[in-house]
Amino acid sequence: MSFETKASAVSLAPGAAAPGPARASITSFTLANGMEVVVIPDARTPVVTHMVWYKNGAADDPLGQSGIAHFLEHLMFKGTANHPQGEFSNLVAELGGQENAFTSYDYTAYFQRIGKEHLATLMAFEADRMRNLVLTDEVVDPERDVVLEERRMRTDSDPSAQLDEAVQAALFAHHPYGIPIIGWNHEIEGLGRAHALAYYQRFYTPENAVLIVAGDVDADEVERLAKDTYGKIPAQAAPPRRARAQEPPHRAHRLVTLRDEKVEQPAHEQVYLVPSYSTAQPGEAEALETLAYMLGGGPTSALYDALVVEEQVAVGAGAYYMGSAVDDTRLWVYATPAPDVSLQDLDVAIDRVLRCFGEEPIDAEHLQRAKTRLIADAVYAQDSQVSLARWYGEALATGLTIDDVVAWPERMEKVTADDVQNAARKWLDKRRAVTGFLLPA
Amino acid sequence: MSFETKASAVSLAPGAAAPGPARASITSFTLANGMEVVVIPDARTPVVTHMVWYKNGAADDPLGQSGIAHFLEHLMFKGTANHPQGEFSNLVAELGGQENAFTSYDYTAYFQRIGKEHLATLMAFEADRMRNLVLTDEVVDPERDVVLEERRMRTDSDPSAQLDEAVQAALFAHHPYGIPIIGWNHEIEGLGRAHALAYYQRFYTPENAVLIVAGDVDADEVERLAKDTYGKIPAQAAPPRRARAQEPPHRAHRLVTLRDEKVEQPAHEQVYLVPSYSTAQPGEAEALETLAYMLGGGPTSALYDALVVEEQVAVGAGAYYMGSAVDDTRLWVYATPAPDVSLQDLDVAIDRVLRCFGEEPIDAEHLQRAKTRLIADAVYAQDSQVSLARWYGEALATGLTIDDVVAWPERMEKVTADDVQNAARKWLDKRRAVTGFLLPA
Repeated sequence: MSFETKASAVSLAPGAAAPGPARASITSFTLANGMEVVVIPDARTPVVTHMVWYKNGAADDPLGQSGIAHFLEHLMFKGTANHPQGEFSNLVAELGGQENAFTSYDYTAYFQRIGKEHLATLMAFEADRMRNLVLTDEVVDPERDVVLEERRMRTDSDPSAQLDEAVQAALFAHHPYGIPIIGWNHEIEGLGRAHALAYYQRFYTPENAVLIVAGDVDADEVERLAKDTYGKIPAQAAPPRRARAQEPPHRAHRLVTLRDEKVEQPAHEQVYLVPSYSTAQPGEAEALETLAYMLGGGPTSALYDALVVEEQVAVGAGAYYMGSAVDDTRLWVYATPAPDVSLQDLDVAIDRVLRCFGEEPIDAEHLQRAKTRLIADAVYAQDSQVSLARWYGEALATGLTIDDVVAWPERMEKVTADDVQNAARKWLDKRRAVTGFLLPA
Repeated sequence: MSFETKASAVSLAPGAAAPGPARASITSFTLANGMEVVVIPDARTPVVTHMVWYKNGAADDPLGQSGIAHFLEHLMFKGTANHPQGEFSNLVAELGGQENAFTSYDYTAYFQRIGKEHLATLMAFEADRMRNLVLTDEVVDPERDVVLEERRMRTDSDPSAQLDEAVQAALFAHHPYGIPIIGWNHEIEGLGRAHALAYYQRFYTPENAVLIVAGDVDADEVERLAKDTYGKIPAQAAPPRRARAQEPPHRAHRLVTLRDEKVEQPAHEQVYLVPSYSTAQPGEAEALETLAYMLGGGPTSALYDALVVEEQVAVGAGAYYMGSAVDDTRLWVYATPAPDVSLQDLDVAIDRVLRCFGEEPIDAEHLQRAKTRLIADAVYAQDSQVSLARWYGEALATGLTIDDVVAWPERMEKVTADDVQNAARKWLDKRRAVTGFLLPA
């Protein structure tokens, strides 16, 4: 039960897509009630990963009810008319399984990993809480306090998290990606049973859900089980439309400075508004993925090499591209200054590295190494069945297709030096970026 | 037909309230359909000012339809089922009158000034367009292009207006005061007949309107006329609720920098989020009004004196408080640098003036002069019957009462040096402010 931050998004790099099992081995179908099902074979162990993705996240929170997607995620663990609170989680634990849930900007997901013989049980429980959640004041009110405490712990007492909130709010003046996933405190305080119930009824429907099953399972068997469980839930209505305000074009640079006595280590971040895998022109997201990696993906990257190794103005530096998003998204560049280096001086140094990257020819070997590495990382990450399932779920929940995921390595291979450099010149425009300074009081 | 900017708000200083005719001479009543009516005697000339205020402005635009309040204001001049386009305006002109309309964040208003014998005619026409506006595609579509052109002219080709938009968007991360009154271009483009009609039906109702009549008129006669015209419109429903997202607490300073080749004169502005007359604790708005005047209300103010006269780092400087607002509002401080003075240096100088103002004792005579001047300005402004009517309309449209307006001079007289200084210390907190830099490319 958690809300995602950019940190967890990083661990998901390279974004929405990864090479996986052969396309032909992946089965997908739609139940009569509109629920999508994807079955991904993975026979390495007798284990199955079962995930339900709802295509609603924090960016779909109704106006004035920020945090409700995340709040609902908490409430989904509170018991149903058929199974009291704790029964599902205890059962998963007793059977030796794991479970978790997460809320992001574009989706909310629930998953379990367990011995494959228990798949039918998981599906029955998960289908049950898609329909039969008990939302009384006695359940809702104390959980709101839990969320408020979570916000106090994770955001309000952490200057770095506060700066991130302020930077995203500045980057997204109009689009709801500027609102924190956990919600604004004063709006969480206003959430009650009626909001939770209305939200649950609108969004927790089969038409709005995607089931991902990865593991040593037979697609026909999964289909039979899905029909017996999720398939019994009547279709509710058309899936909810994502009606989000879109960003106006930005013309000004914004510098957000947070000073707090709790800050011991100053930090620099810079965020650019860029297309996502779902909004980009063909090849553009892959170019941004490569760009972020070449700029800041580890100790051989341009930023690290220039700032940490060569100039020694920073003790750390990096970049990442949050490619998986329904709408236009963010590319971050960040650095930690060396002692006695001001953030202003570091800022100048970062700008110089970015400008040079856009102007000087890109070494073909560097480019190939970056692409190979990104693809290899994706392959290695599939060692985790949960990561494998998650890539497909995240892609489908943000408007992509199974084919998009499968063809990702191929598209990555096609990225040229020109593509990367064009992306750098086009999107890394400081005049429209948001810079964040974290400083001691 | 215009949308308000902070510039026109300035001309309205001192905000929502002014001394006026004796309380007892002002009549107010409510029609059976819920429409409020206020009659303000002003017998100096045989002229009457007739204003209808709708309690909806740009900050009430439905999500994703920014600009629709202002768009409707345009459409209100397009003719009704009974009177074709131009008939009303031509009649006013033929009768030697004036008319105008304006859209602000919290209201939209229509007014005419004319010989008092024509009041009944105005009321009949204005009541007619509260109900019988013709909104066909043929009317709506070309007018949208007019508004888009207005935006291009007034905002998109003016770097200073662009900076203002970006500064307000940064100040209001969540509240709709961060959205420009004229709307974001991409959302104006999406407005059509269905939006206009839904908006008109929801907001242009007697329950949501306030009629102000100022002039050489008899209250009983106005009541009779109002019943005969506006009173014939059936009540529609409860007045629309202002359901606006409120700001989270801010913890970071934001510097917005706009560089454009069209900029010839750099400029500095700094905006603070402060309570309005409608949200402040008792006396606080009056203290902020006095503070803004003492800081930046003319050539004897603290900012002008320090920056322009003494240090000569600026060629102009000022401050103003936009006190009239339903929700928390803005206090602006601005300065124009002297040649060869950087905005960074000017920024440091401004901060020093503000800090000193909060720390050093306030001269009692200065304070009294400021209060006397603010009150006197308000009295003089009433020479204009339109200003007189406008103060009452603006106050009632933002949640204040006639009594609030009448008692304003009395409340202003009570402002103490401590009040002003406390307001400076409490609200002029740079750590939470937004600074704007306008610079050549």
